[in-house]
Amino acid sequence: MPLSLNTKYLEDFISKGEYGLISNEIKRVHKLLHHKTGVGSEFTGWLNLPSCYNKEEFIQIKETANKIKNMCDILVVIGIGGSYLGARAVIEAINSQNYNNMPKDTPDIYFIGNSISTDSICDLLKICEDKDICVNIISKSGTTTEPSIAFRVFRNLLESKYGREYNKRIFCTTDRSKGTLKEISDKEGYETFVIPDDVGGRYSVLTAVGLLPIAVSGISIDKLMLGAQKAELDFSVDEIDKNDCYKYAAIRNMLYKKGKEIEILATYEPKMSMFGEWYKQLFGESEGKDKKGIFPSSVTFSTDLHSMGQFIQDGSRNLFETVIYIESNKQEITLDKLSQDIDGLNFLAGKNISYINKKAFEGTLLAHTDGGVPNIVILIPEMNEFELGYLIYFFEKACAISAYILGVNPFNQPGVESYKKNMFALLGKPGYESEFEALSKRLK
Amino acid sequence: MPLSLNTKYLEDFISKGEYGLISNEIKRVHKLLHHKTGVGSEFTGWLNLPSCYNKEEFIQIKETANKIKNMCDILVVIGIGGSYLGARAVIEAINSQNYNNMPKDTPDIYFIGNSISTDSICDLLKICEDKDICVNIISKSGTTTEPSIAFRVFRNLLESKYGREYNKRIFCTTDRSKGTLKEISDKEGYETFVIPDDVGGRYSVLTAVGLLPIAVSGISIDKLMLGAQKAELDFSVDEIDKNDCYKYAAIRNMLYKKGKEIEILATYEPKMSMFGEWYKQLFGESEGKDKKGIFPSSVTFSTDLHSMGQFIQDGSRNLFETVIYIESNKQEITLDKLSQDIDGLNFLAGKNISYINKKAFEGTLLAHTDGGVPNIVILIPEMNEFELGYLIYFFEKACAISAYILGVNPFNQPGVESYKKNMFALLGKPGYESEFEALSKRLK
Repeated sequence: MPLSLNTKYLEDFISKGEYGLISNEIKRVHKLLHHKTGVGSEFTGWLNLPSCYNKEEFIQIKETANKIKNMCDILVVIGIGGSYLGARAVIEAINSQNYNNMPKDTPDIYFIGNSISTDSICDLLKICEDKDICVNIISKSGTTTEPSIAFRVFRNLLESKYGREYNKRIFCTTDRSKGTLKEISDKEGYETFVIPDDVGGRYSVLTAVGLLPIAVSGISIDKLMLGAQKAELDFSVDEIDKNDCYKYAAIRNMLYKKGKEIEILATYEPKMSMFGEWYKQLFGESEGKDKKGIFPSSVTFSTDLHSMGQFIQDGSRNLFETVIYIESNKQEITLDKLSQDIDGLNFLAGKNISYINKKAFEGTLLAHTDGGVPNIVILIPEMNEFELGYLIYFFEKACAISAYILGVNPFNQPGVESYKKNMFALLGKPGYESEFEALSKRLK
Repeated sequence: MPLSLNTKYLEDFISKGEYGLISNEIKRVHKLLHHKTGVGSEFTGWLNLPSCYNKEEFIQIKETANKIKNMCDILVVIGIGGSYLGARAVIEAINSQNYNNMPKDTPDIYFIGNSISTDSICDLLKICEDKDICVNIISKSGTTTEPSIAFRVFRNLLESKYGREYNKRIFCTTDRSKGTLKEISDKEGYETFVIPDDVGGRYSVLTAVGLLPIAVSGISIDKLMLGAQKAELDFSVDEIDKNDCYKYAAIRNMLYKKGKEIEILATYEPKMSMFGEWYKQLFGESEGKDKKGIFPSSVTFSTDLHSMGQFIQDGSRNLFETVIYIESNKQEITLDKLSQDIDGLNFLAGKNISYINKKAFEGTLLAHTDGGVPNIVILIPEMNEFELGYLIYFFEKACAISAYILGVNPFNQPGVESYKKNMFALLGKPGYESEFEALSKRLK
């Protein structure tokens, strides 16, 4: 039984009739997406990916993951944006937020090449000392600044550690046929995996981009894909009443029109905090354009009830929450009765900690709605590969539908070029000479 | 030379005259704070803390930190909200975001008791297997649910590992004289440290709350305090032109009045990301009340230029950025020239990575202001204990001043009680019987 959407806590904010009023709009944008007639339709390869992925490459991913597991203590994953967020989110959600520190028989996995921080790179070089490492470089073009810098550093490290055999420890996830990374891979003999042409970075977690590092961490990518496949089927009908994914997209837009400009994705498990980062890229990059868009934010509860909780309860009323609650845990801890009730918790003796977490969730739900914050609730029976695959597809499709309702291209990111263009000019990159002077002057 | 505030990139958003218009308001709220005549003045002990802290306890903290270093492989820090955010932010900013994984001669430090997640606790129990551990429990009352649950679990672990001597491995940071944690500490012989009565949780990083775990990680708390002390002095004048801290507070409020409802704290170092979490609690909990307040958010660049970057560049125009840029690194990596320019980066050969990071910062600054996003810039010459102590005090005082300008009590958090009250009722806590039924009914 996969996730369910609970709209009960929206009743004070959205009337029943409003759902009916948006149903035709939903049908319209469903067509845009499925008939590939909307803007950006060249990047909708993710839509049928769970049922139509490349089965041969999938087997290769699993085999290579096993090889990597046996070859190294540390897998260094080099990539930025969609080339690291999805994999990291899945690895933490399924394994642990402390994956690298847990006792395990799979390699540690570090993500680098997602910033231009010298300290980050130097720290990881120290961690890699005296360790066997492999590198998975993920870049469509092979020329994105951040991963390219890190790849130069870690390729050097591999050469100095392993000499001529260093190429057997590099795994490239890149374009099928073109780009510099593909060229060098073929020339130097790196094993390669494909970033499909019709899947953008933020939608790429279920391609080799995400799947290879995920598989190395011991997670069943078969089950992950099965979950996504079930979601692909479940969320293919165009009726809002029968499609929780579309309903969620519709609700977001209704709330946005009512002045709710910030969405807070809340979970009750720290291991889901990277999933929040993945969600922020997905929605922020898809919807934040043309001076529009819901600002995506994320919190972990009850942790952040002691941080952002005050604001959510009683600050500016321009926000709504989407709460993911996982209903059961694999492990349980029962509270003992203490001879002296020093902390006043003896009334909970015999109860599981997860029971207390659930009451925190329920109590917060009522408190925040009483405070004027609409709460969308997504209930997940348990956290495993199947459920997570389902959840990923739920958000991917909801995001596309939501962006189409908003009236923007869900699949481009023209604004990301602005900083790059300026950075290249300021770095004196050939071809940017004319901008260099104008920009330098403004910085004085 | 400590931090400097650069307001050059605000010129299109705030006219010079506006600073003059707010200068009297600044003088007014300065008095509220310094004469302790404003609301919440009973919690302004942090104001003179850097110059007036308890020197005896400070020595005890350093001695005990050394003892803990020699006693254990892992220090488990139990606390929620201000009782973990400050320490974790400082440890990561000064040492490394990967502190626990770095080769070092100080203990690993794990923060727990900041959620009600069974998985988090179970994971840490596994990590602690076969390791020597100490526990630092931080709670004013000793009855906050999250840390109390974790303390029950880890006290059990200590007892099972060390028998009668377990009490020598527990360090309590709590009220000076009252509360259940103080009682049990005295009875069982735990060493204790004091949470001052006049310092609230989110302002407590420079008390024993933060200082003990920080010192265990090998950081010089002397230098940290010296930096804060310098800031206390520098930011004590009530003239906006001579006080960057007050100027920052004033700018935030001017932008808020112009419809900028979201502040994004941006840094260019992943090790500063927990500092962003600390900042979010500080400002969110201080200002987010009475249906008012700037929504605090944080990003790490260039990482999140490939996530939230699109939204910031071109989405809803209801936001501004406060950018912390650290101008030099202790370590440097120089890019080599490759025989084949596979990634197109050979034009950067001979340049340091930190130079490239700086150009990313400058390029982004211009791109985002061109996109209509006001950018407040805080330049820090380098990251070390002194500079960080200075920065912490800068934000603490700016937050108090900013909240007073906004017209709210900077030091209370009445909204945090709402979820707790509901949770207790739903858990069947004695004394909450009347609420139980009403709440349960609403959940059906």
